[in-house]
Amino acid sequence: MSGNQIGQAFRVTTFGESHGKCVGVVIDGCPAGLEIDLEFVQAELDRRRPGQSNLTTQRQETDRVEFVSGLFEGKTTGAPLCAMIPNTDARPGDYDHLEDQFRPSHADYTYQVKYGHRDHRGGGRSSARETAARVVAGAVAQLFLRHSGIQIDAFVSQVGSIRVPQAWTELDLTQTEQNPVRCPDPASAEKMNALIQEVKRQGDSIGGIVTGVIRGCPPGLGEPVFDRLHADLGKAMLSINAVKGFEYGSGFQGVELRGSQHNDAFTRALGEAGETQKTGEPKAPQEVGRIGTLTNHSGGIQGGISNGMDIYFRVAFKPVATIMKPQASINKNGEETSLQGRGRHDPCVVPRAVPIVEAMAAIILADHLLRNRLSTVKGREEKWTYPTNSE
Amino acid sequence: MSGNQIGQAFRVTTFGESHGKCVGVVIDGCPAGLEIDLEFVQAELDRRRPGQSNLTTQRQETDRVEFVSGLFEGKTTGAPLCAMIPNTDARPGDYDHLEDQFRPSHADYTYQVKYGHRDHRGGGRSSARETAARVVAGAVAQLFLRHSGIQIDAFVSQVGSIRVPQAWTELDLTQTEQNPVRCPDPASAEKMNALIQEVKRQGDSIGGIVTGVIRGCPPGLGEPVFDRLHADLGKAMLSINAVKGFEYGSGFQGVELRGSQHNDAFTRALGEAGETQKTGEPKAPQEVGRIGTLTNHSGGIQGGISNGMDIYFRVAFKPVATIMKPQASINKNGEETSLQGRGRHDPCVVPRAVPIVEAMAAIILADHLLRNRLSTVKGREEKWTYPTNSE
Amino acid sequence: MSGNQIGQAFRVTTFGESHGKCVGVVIDGCPAGLEIDLEFVQAELDRRRPGQSNLTTQRQETDRVEFVSGLFEGKTTGAPLCAMIPNTDARPGDYDHLEDQFRPSHADYTYQVKYGHRDHRGGGRSSARETAARVVAGAVAQLFLRHSGIQIDAFVSQVGSIRVPQAWTELDLTQTEQNPVRCPDPASAEKMNALIQEVKRQGDSIGGIVTGVIRGCPPGLGEPVFDRLHADLGKAMLSINAVKGFEYGSGFQGVELRGSQHNDAFTRALGEAGETQKTGEPKAPQEVGRIGTLTNHSGGIQGGISNGMDIYFRVAFKPVATIMKPQASINKNGEETSLQGRGRHDPCVVPRAVPIVEAMAAIILADHLLRNRLSTVKGREEKWTYPTNSE
Amino acid sequence: MSGNQIGQAFRVTTFGESHGKCVGVVIDGCPAGLEIDLEFVQAELDRRRPGQSNLTTQRQETDRVEFVSGLFEGKTTGAPLCAMIPNTDARPGDYDHLEDQFRPSHADYTYQVKYGHRDHRGGGRSSARETAARVVAGAVAQLFLRHSGIQIDAFVSQVGSIRVPQAWTELDLTQTEQNPVRCPDPASAEKMNALIQEVKRQGDSIGGIVTGVIRGCPPGLGEPVFDRLHADLGKAMLSINAVKGFEYGSGFQGVELRGSQHNDAFTRALGEAGETQKTGEPKAPQEVGRIGTLTNHSGGIQGGISNGMDIYFRVAFKPVATIMKPQASINKNGEETSLQGRGRHDPCVVPRAVPIVEAMAAIILADHLLRNRLSTVKGREEKWTYPTNSE
Repeated sequence: MSGNQIGQAFRVTTFGESHGKCVGVVIDGCPAGLEIDLEFVQAELDRRRPGQSNLTTQRQETDRVEFVSGLFEGKTTGAPLCAMIPNTDARPGDYDHLEDQFRPSHADYTYQVKYGHRDHRGGGRSSARETAARVVAGAVAQLFLRHSGIQIDAFVSQVGSIRVPQAWTELDLTQTEQNPVRCPDPASAEKMNALIQEVKRQGDSIGGIVTGVIRGCPPGLGEPVFDRLHADLGKAMLSINAVKGFEYGSGFQGVELRGSQHNDAFTRALGEAGETQKTGEPKAPQEVGRIGTLTNHSGGIQGGISNGMDIYFRVAFKPVATIMKPQASINKNGEETSLQGRGRHDPCVVPRAVPIVEAMAAIILADHLLRNRLSTVKGREEKWTYPTNSE
Repeated sequence: MSGNQIGQAFRVTTFGESHGKCVGVVIDGCPAGLEIDLEFVQAELDRRRPGQSNLTTQRQETDRVEFVSGLFEGKTTGAPLCAMIPNTDARPGDYDHLEDQFRPSHADYTYQVKYGHRDHRGGGRSSARETAARVVAGAVAQLFLRHSGIQIDAFVSQVGSIRVPQAWTELDLTQTEQNPVRCPDPASAEKMNALIQEVKRQGDSIGGIVTGVIRGCPPGLGEPVFDRLHADLGKAMLSINAVKGFEYGSGFQGVELRGSQHNDAFTRALGEAGETQKTGEPKAPQEVGRIGTLTNHSGGIQGGISNGMDIYFRVAFKPVATIMKPQASINKNGEETSLQGRGRHDPCVVPRAVPIVEAMAAIILADHLLRNRLSTVKGREEKWTYPTNSE
Repeated sequence: MSGNQIGQAFRVTTFGESHGKCVGVVIDGCPAGLEIDLEFVQAELDRRRPGQSNLTTQRQETDRVEFVSGLFEGKTTGAPLCAMIPNTDARPGDYDHLEDQFRPSHADYTYQVKYGHRDHRGGGRSSARETAARVVAGAVAQLFLRHSGIQIDAFVSQVGSIRVPQAWTELDLTQTEQNPVRCPDPASAEKMNALIQEVKRQGDSIGGIVTGVIRGCPPGLGEPVFDRLHADLGKAMLSINAVKGFEYGSGFQGVELRGSQHNDAFTRALGEAGETQKTGEPKAPQEVGRIGTLTNHSGGIQGGISNGMDIYFRVAFKPVATIMKPQASINKNGEETSLQGRGRHDPCVVPRAVPIVEAMAAIILADHLLRNRLSTVKGREEKWTYPTNSE
Repeated sequence: MSGNQIGQAFRVTTFGESHGKCVGVVIDGCPAGLEIDLEFVQAELDRRRPGQSNLTTQRQETDRVEFVSGLFEGKTTGAPLCAMIPNTDARPGDYDHLEDQFRPSHADYTYQVKYGHRDHRGGGRSSARETAARVVAGAVAQLFLRHSGIQIDAFVSQVGSIRVPQAWTELDLTQTEQNPVRCPDPASAEKMNALIQEVKRQGDSIGGIVTGVIRGCPPGLGEPVFDRLHADLGKAMLSINAVKGFEYGSGFQGVELRGSQHNDAFTRALGEAGETQKTGEPKAPQEVGRIGTLTNHSGGIQGGISNGMDIYFRVAFKPVATIMKPQASINKNGEETSLQGRGRHDPCVVPRAVPIVEAMAAIILADHLLRNRLSTVKGREEKWTYPTNSE
């Protein structure tokens, strides 16, 4: 009943606190026989690592991941994978002054009310450091998804009021890692960088938006009626620290369209219309002879189930709560007080949120890829396609 | 592993198809001793009922709910509640022409691919008729929440490009039911009504936004780290047919703010600042001597846990896919075809979506209210509050 | 968190009370495309039906099952199946005298303590009538299992002190339905019948044992470490009313053996040694080229996972609590009182328990057959067998 | 869907292999504010430790447990507890000769079939070493149960054919730890010890029975209809390595009784009749003014819910499969082969199984104690008792 677990078939449980011994993760349900590329997992973790650029917190964590179970000769055995990431640069003393205080817009007060006893050091369990464990699980999920040709990419599409002007389909997503902002449009990246630097100098923080894209997803993933693919994706994104909103496909803008504009007409002419074809990735078997749509307002999901088109979504991150300015608050005795952020924090979380968004998307996709094996009597071999002799 | 269930402690499973015998729901985990006001449940269902105004589908369903288990002498026994809503105006023949066709932006194609065998009549399981079952469960949840002083309200805040100009805190939510649009601002309601009528005349459809408000929620609800209260609310909303986006508190707009603007300062002076005080509802015991915030960009939730302030969120609905205009599509043989909506459908779903949004919010709150009983060794009696002698 | 659900992939939820409107079941997770033979389902239910012989309660329930969702043109669609069995011969008035009394060794007292409010009529939710819903779910599960060549049979092996003298492998299980006791050994059946009649005349009751056998089960079902196949079978059996014990394979007797006696040597010579070969059923594909054991003390399960040999187990049922003799008890006021069974009850439950044991076994097997699809990266196609060229 | 997790509210997930880096456990759902007595946890683990006497395997594991999350200042915070037990005396090379062989009555073959890729070293995940993690979780559960006055004890009641002659109620359970067999009857312990030594000299193994007793359990624990308290206890016991059977209360013997003998008459005269009164433990508040039974064939559970009387059950363990005698088997190529146990193993597992049985019972009780908080609208405060003015 605790909420430390996500996924039903590919079940991920995280544990650990910001200034305790480690953060870690148990992945239960990862199928046997998956080769784990440890360098890839570490590389994903490095993308989330603090201290990677002058846009991020200067906490210096090496963030070395170690798998302690579930692997034999480099491959999964079907047993639970447990991975640990030791906390090496914890400075719990930095938080002594906060033991009795509630930082505004943090989880200090709500944890105190809910549990009566809390680890206040760096937010304890509520710290974004917990997301390092998610990135490890997400990397394992990505390795599994590769077998089905599914590729997941995220990037920064907005910082403050600075937005990437292009549609995501017009961007070259291989450019995302070329700048510290993780924005694939170099011109926007430069402006965003300047804004973050300015905000940092002011001791303040700023929000932003991360866009996620899933390509090569076979049709059929997602479970009616509550576990729709986008509902599970939405929950996963909303569970990331600082997230305030999620939309997919046409999203909030779509409400202004008419149905005749919004509906995505079916087509067989995918060679011309389908964005999926652009990825250059090997096609999943399900894609042979499949149906596509001429537009994609649906965002690759219809009735909660993937339709084989690209899935895309946007995730809104608020400005982080820790700022270097004095703020009014309340202490444990209910007395009014004032506090000011110390610790080491990011002025804007979205650059480091990119791998986290990818990780959460990968966990959800892996879960649904497995769950979909259960949908028919004979298993996935009998998945429907329209008669191939009509090709 | 199927997705027909939501909630962990207050578990709701729906069943039934649009043109089968009935839709229904099993509620497992509703505590014993709850008096079920059947008239209230029916009244909630009537708010969702088709044919209630000229804005909605003319399918004439009486939608009478019958409980067949779990009640004894008007009160719950702790056994599963099963409620059935017979389909009385099903016209499956209306859909014969669609048996082999995939309606654009519906779930026809994705169900076919996933399951190989589907009930095509009116969308079968994918029909929004399934939400009638949710409304019944939501009404039961609301009866339970009343014991804790929690009140849930939703209303239409946007249709197409027409938006309610006021902040929700400035609206009189008791006016929501005074017009068929379910918009508490009469001036906006009139414009929205006109737009929907116009769209209907054109045989087209239009989207909209529903805003939800939860007042009187005690602090402490929500489970770190994946089952944050807003993440579960978001999933619940995204699981409603036609929903494309969810945001809470400052939402997507909040990304443009600085942390110094966005942070909500704590205060004890709730009498002046707290919106909760305005409801006139009896206070939950937890509210005595509690802490509030001067602003509420957090939307009543911090670190995934309610902080006692009002919770508010927005849900985006796309224009419904069924329109009375000819559209290009594909049939089961992969051949190109054309189809046109017949059936009986809403030109805009948001007026009828209001009770559904409330129902899903109530289910999530009831689930978390129960789950929160497990958070401390001694149970809820020992919930933390700051020393009362400091009052 | 309520306990009205069993199974993770093939999820079965029952609802309904003994003297309410109906008992019913929701099966969520039954794969799409399964043909439902309604006559078979009804026939299974008839085997459990009260009033079928003079060994059973004379309550006259026709027990007609109706499916209200999840079927289209006779086949499952992947949507939840809901089936209802109306209560037609409910006589709640028979229980008026028990409203304030606690019948010894029934659930009256414990439900009162747990829930504070209970449906006392015929035991309400705690009545064995609930198992009718299980039989429906079990029949659906059996239809699914047939696709994998799995066959489940149970029979009465003991009533009071009268035991079938033969090992189950020496019995002709097709004889089970030839007598009202459901014992495949005619000589034992006659003695058992006489004992039950005697006990009935005395207004008393007697216990017994049901043996269950699962043949044709492919190797690989069962999940380490908690959801071992026998652990889930054991829980399912222990969840049946009046069950006090469960053992499989060598069971309690096996504790007296030495390891050198108990170990089952592996062999390839299945044609001579494997009981599975005797069934005459079509072999599952997994059986081609598989390994067997010379003895089967393991009961077909090793390390919690089926090994392809026959699975067998025994379930102990206590004498039913309702007897026609006066008994001392306590009422709701804590006052001592005396009561005597009226109602209509079985002097011995094991004959009617046979289809219930089969149903519960089928539900567990169906669940694990589905879950096993998730064990490897590529799915079941790549299941290991030893090199076939060594055949 | 993997089976590495048990419990719904008090969720325990184990990980780790016999000859990997460690075994470990995540406990998710342990309420906040529980003081963790690390010495008690270690002492429980020491009772399971290999090498503790000449009756057990000579593998020398120090089995030091370390908690890496979820604790702050010695108390739980509501966050997941993760505990690790490093493997210090792993000798994977001992198993090189078994890489391609299937040991009779072990899980080697079934894991190979299920997963295609397995850690063969010492059984890998299927090793009983995994139960060390369970003992840690069970110790935490026991600390939680103490707050409700619940005490759990297990002891060896049979080895081979040697049975303790007394009923458990006539034994002094404080004597259990006084001998290496863990049998509270010194005379039986001596005989059992001699038998185990003889079997060990023969290079063979022998089975046995562990009896479990739960005293001080308040009435009301257990969830109808599938998650009956004894069903969950049974599953938990059957999930322990080498277990072949479970019975509670009158068990398999009870089937021979008449209902008039078996029924437990209710009484208020607990001072004379109730075994619970003998424990000397502080009474839980629920016990004040409660009802008991004159006999206890029900084993403290009626309708799946505890009735306040002592709960008792028996668990059958087969002779361990590893013996020092040559045995016929099959290798990965399907060729017949012969093998002989090396490694370091117990000739009889029951002495070391005693703390494991206690641990599993504690986990189940903790889970149901929490789940029971959800049974009524107002929570446990309103639990029913009969009118106290009738005292």
